[in-house]
Amino acid sequence: MNTLDRNAKGVYLITVTPFTDSGALDLASTDRMVDFCLEKGVTGLTVLGIMGEATKLTAEESRTFVRQVLARVNGRVPVVVGASAPGFAPMGELTRAVMDLGAAGVMVAPPPTVRTDDQIVAYFDMVSETVGPQVPWVLQDHPVSTGVQMSPGVILRILKNAPTCVMLKHEDWPGLAKLSAIRAASDKGELQRVSILTGNGGGLFLPEELTRGADGAMTGFAYPEMMVDVVAAHARGERDRAHDLFDAYLPLARYEQQAGVGLAVRKHLFKERGVIASAMVRKPGPKLSAQDLDDIRFLVQRQDKRLRDLG
Amino acid sequence: MNTLDRNAKGVYLITVTPFTDSGALDLASTDRMVDFCLEKGVTGLTVLGIMGEATKLTAEESRTFVRQVLARVNGRVPVVVGASAPGFAPMGELTRAVMDLGAAGVMVAPPPTVRTDDQIVAYFDMVSETVGPQVPWVLQDHPVSTGVQMSPGVILRILKNAPTCVMLKHEDWPGLAKLSAIRAASDKGELQRVSILTGNGGGLFLPEELTRGADGAMTGFAYPEMMVDVVAAHARGERDRAHDLFDAYLPLARYEQQAGVGLAVRKHLFKERGVIASAMVRKPGPKLSAQDLDDIRFLVQRQDKRLRDLG
Amino acid sequence: MNTLDRNAKGVYLITVTPFTDSGALDLASTDRMVDFCLEKGVTGLTVLGIMGEATKLTAEESRTFVRQVLARVNGRVPVVVGASAPGFAPMGELTRAVMDLGAAGVMVAPPPTVRTDDQIVAYFDMVSETVGPQVPWVLQDHPVSTGVQMSPGVILRILKNAPTCVMLKHEDWPGLAKLSAIRAASDKGELQRVSILTGNGGGLFLPEELTRGADGAMTGFAYPEMMVDVVAAHARGERDRAHDLFDAYLPLARYEQQAGVGLAVRKHLFKERGVIASAMVRKPGPKLSAQDLDDIRFLVQRQDKRLRDLG
Amino acid sequence: MNTLDRNAKGVYLITVTPFTDSGALDLASTDRMVDFCLEKGVTGLTVLGIMGEATKLTAEESRTFVRQVLARVNGRVPVVVGASAPGFAPMGELTRAVMDLGAAGVMVAPPPTVRTDDQIVAYFDMVSETVGPQVPWVLQDHPVSTGVQMSPGVILRILKNAPTCVMLKHEDWPGLAKLSAIRAASDKGELQRVSILTGNGGGLFLPEELTRGADGAMTGFAYPEMMVDVVAAHARGERDRAHDLFDAYLPLARYEQQAGVGLAVRKHLFKERGVIASAMVRKPGPKLSAQDLDDIRFLVQRQDKRLRDLG
Repeated sequence: MNTLDRNAKGVYLITVTPFTDSGALDLASTDRMVDFCLEKGVTGLTVLGIMGEATKLTAEESRTFVRQVLARVNGRVPVVVGASAPGFAPMGELTRAVMDLGAAGVMVAPPPTVRTDDQIVAYFDMVSETVGPQVPWVLQDHPVSTGVQMSPGVILRILKNAPTCVMLKHEDWPGLAKLSAIRAASDKGELQRVSILTGNGGGLFLPEELTRGADGAMTGFAYPEMMVDVVAAHARGERDRAHDLFDAYLPLARYEQQAGVGLAVRKHLFKERGVIASAMVRKPGPKLSAQDLDDIRFLVQRQDKRLRDLG
Repeated sequence: MNTLDRNAKGVYLITVTPFTDSGALDLASTDRMVDFCLEKGVTGLTVLGIMGEATKLTAEESRTFVRQVLARVNGRVPVVVGASAPGFAPMGELTRAVMDLGAAGVMVAPPPTVRTDDQIVAYFDMVSETVGPQVPWVLQDHPVSTGVQMSPGVILRILKNAPTCVMLKHEDWPGLAKLSAIRAASDKGELQRVSILTGNGGGLFLPEELTRGADGAMTGFAYPEMMVDVVAAHARGERDRAHDLFDAYLPLARYEQQAGVGLAVRKHLFKERGVIASAMVRKPGPKLSAQDLDDIRFLVQRQDKRLRDLG
Repeated sequence: MNTLDRNAKGVYLITVTPFTDSGALDLASTDRMVDFCLEKGVTGLTVLGIMGEATKLTAEESRTFVRQVLARVNGRVPVVVGASAPGFAPMGELTRAVMDLGAAGVMVAPPPTVRTDDQIVAYFDMVSETVGPQVPWVLQDHPVSTGVQMSPGVILRILKNAPTCVMLKHEDWPGLAKLSAIRAASDKGELQRVSILTGNGGGLFLPEELTRGADGAMTGFAYPEMMVDVVAAHARGERDRAHDLFDAYLPLARYEQQAGVGLAVRKHLFKERGVIASAMVRKPGPKLSAQDLDDIRFLVQRQDKRLRDLG
Repeated sequence: MNTLDRNAKGVYLITVTPFTDSGALDLASTDRMVDFCLEKGVTGLTVLGIMGEATKLTAEESRTFVRQVLARVNGRVPVVVGASAPGFAPMGELTRAVMDLGAAGVMVAPPPTVRTDDQIVAYFDMVSETVGPQVPWVLQDHPVSTGVQMSPGVILRILKNAPTCVMLKHEDWPGLAKLSAIRAASDKGELQRVSILTGNGGGLFLPEELTRGADGAMTGFAYPEMMVDVVAAHARGERDRAHDLFDAYLPLARYEQQAGVGLAVRKHLFKERGVIASAMVRKPGPKLSAQDLDDIRFLVQRQDKRLRDLG
């Protein structure tokens, strides 16, 4: 089970990193979060991403957190670790460390400094060389955070060059046409099929992305069961049911995707659901106001009612 | 009626610019669009914004289009004209031209080149001087498109300096905390109250923004009645009703707000609704695929059902 | 003489736009500036570029200024007009207007919004279509101002697609390797040769660029004779003489290339040299301090001495 | 001697990180480089900056390199370590580590994500808190690499808030007016004086910056003696001599400051001068072409002649 391959599907949840109110790593909450995700039916976990506050951890804390997650998961689902780094030496160092600990693979986004098609392709050739021939990796396409625009042609060039790149985290907002183009290329046999999980925040375009050929989602949301259930309904061919489920969660998912306060909203909801002990976000980070909390309470209440009505 | 003042409220719709299939200005559709908006209850119109393809019009076309809109509106609601320009000379030239034609005011966003607080404030001091003491103007705060981050403190400095700036188009995504801060300042008497209309695409945070003190919306959506009805429900104090209406339109509003194809979706929907004759978007611009059209058909069908259920 | 073709060489000076102290267009200074440039040996002029404060002119002023320059030049050298615009309609409108007035061609840089190789190539295909089959045009590659990185391969694709693109304004800072690559492609017969004029500010890499195959310079500097003389010495095969001349002007050229105040320095020097009546830069624009003026005085004095020593 | 304080002056050289041809850390060359710098008269060293390829080192390599430099310097001059990091936890971790090893202080630039005045000031308040009350630190103002524009007013706010910020690395290109404004503030007693070392690449505006009140330079150049001698001549009040020295090196300094290949030029020159054994730059990094090498040879030859003539 603990492998990352071209057939991966379902929901790989991007986890938060739980802290105590005083800002220390909270390993008990980490365990609870792992259990919660698996109970809700996720098929994988992704740690040390942007929403995991990776850049705010010391190197020692990163290792401790990854070790804890891997121990708790205990091989039940693959765990992907974010390994984007400003240089190849630290990327290689981190990759070796987490693979030794038992990670299933790493995920890499391009740095903001690569711009032309050739620069992007050359960058990922070096990523392949850096992680080495044994480590499966995920190509993260997230122009909103990286500023790097990868055309479908560039993604195909990267995938052709990199036999160990087994998954695309598709996060171009929302890029339905791009998703269709990449899927079409492997359907036509131009390259080996890869798993495509969509990363658009909270799965805000999940139903449409599944229709275009996505295998599932790799993103974060305080209600991972929404994504699990939408993917399942889609797999059963129940398009309307998939949308009904999605629509029930959409007002809150939209609220959780706000730039800036989004992570605070997510941690608050995880805390409310009893998953983590504290909603603490390390500095620099947002804090929720009384009005924000009132908005959330109201939206959750309405969501609960919709879910009851939906059955 | 045809004035722009600090008490403006309701919905100022950002209009599209209708073209024929061959790409020429379509003035008959322009008239129909004006009628449609007024029938749906908008309280103002805003033309020559980004979603109005302003930069793709010749100077002559811009004048023709503005003249047509103003003639058709015939003073029934105020018409605001986008006047952002890379220099003050063309900004002044356009402002004088459209005010002579009967516009109610102009709207200006900062250029990407201003960065520090002082640069931003100095820029808008020059805007005030450029448009002159007789012309009411709207401050557009849209960091996603301009790259310019205006803190609440900077917006307050601009407003204090500019007696003719009567409205803020609040479009920081979604910036609920900023909205609260600006409203609080005039409530405390620190400056004269201005109208705040929210511009977040398709009104994606409209109910929450109204709760924070927004007077309405200035944005585009193929179903302006949604925003009109949400604002009305909020004004009557019916919070749940406002959200029910909003939620009914949310899945489609979300789809129409996609970066890239959004304008094509909007024009397609306007055409489907019989408002404009062609969904043509001038180059460079997106085209909808068969899959996009299927997505839209499906979402509209579901929306129609929800609206019937809602009554 | 008044044509723009693939064999263009020498110095196309980017002119300033002279204003009176009160900020009005100064047509008498415009005439003097044209005469001055031709006396110094420039082989072409380029107007309405960034350093010509193009964005600060009204449409009417732009036409007046271009008309005045063309009348004074009277066919003695080609005049290129900057036609970069946020949309194709205004680009076409301006192009037709200036070609009717007698311009030799237009110059276009990509907008900041194009990013991938395919987007850039598609953009310039539309530029070709917009300016039409009769108008020679110049491809401006200036990543520092546009943010657009064009690889040598992309430039070659653009040139192959566009038979009327006869010149590259090479302004990637300093991009000697790129210059070599593009020149090599036409030497190998992969595409038709184009003229390459280097635009790096004040010709700060001019001697090296000539060695790599540039045909001359298209940039601004208050001492255009430096570039004329360096190009001439290079053409005679006098490498050391070319560098001696260049080095004599380098300290001042460096000072004039400062981001921000550079244009004010250039206009000040033009005024000191009796070329224009006022150093006025339209708002928003820099002003020179007493210390700046002292720096300039000192540098000019030292430059005069070096030029005397050089003979 | 091994302290960093508000009276620091002279030249703090930004060092390269020497590698062997196979890309390993070269500690013997590191020792030679330290000796070379001290022989040339630098008054401090700065390691792990951008030009030190800091992001390409593993955490282990960073520690090894800093330890080696500190051991070789052995307290003769202060050593500043770059500690900019995407989060405060790793910044604090690195700071504690290098201070324990004997560094004199750390240097921090803002991340690209802070934009408004208040965000910038808040960021550096957290930097102060992170490095703690015992560690002197350098504020790095380098908008070209960070994208963050700090107005003089913002810098003064940061300095007032941070008693342990003892130095400004002034690297706004070239920002002579900013330098004057900051110096004027402490002259007027508005805040405690800080050391200002200018970082503009290769000291390209060093003479003018010294005239405006800079205490020296903190930057890299393969001929640190240029900066040492220019600072000394300026200190003796010999303005013309300072410029004569500066001008003699300017053509090569300009060439070494090219974006992209600059670091390769610098390492090549260090190798030619016998300082380091290999000019190797880690990937992703530039390589010099035969034409580049010919340019450099020619420029060095001419520079040698000018220095002989100058005496």
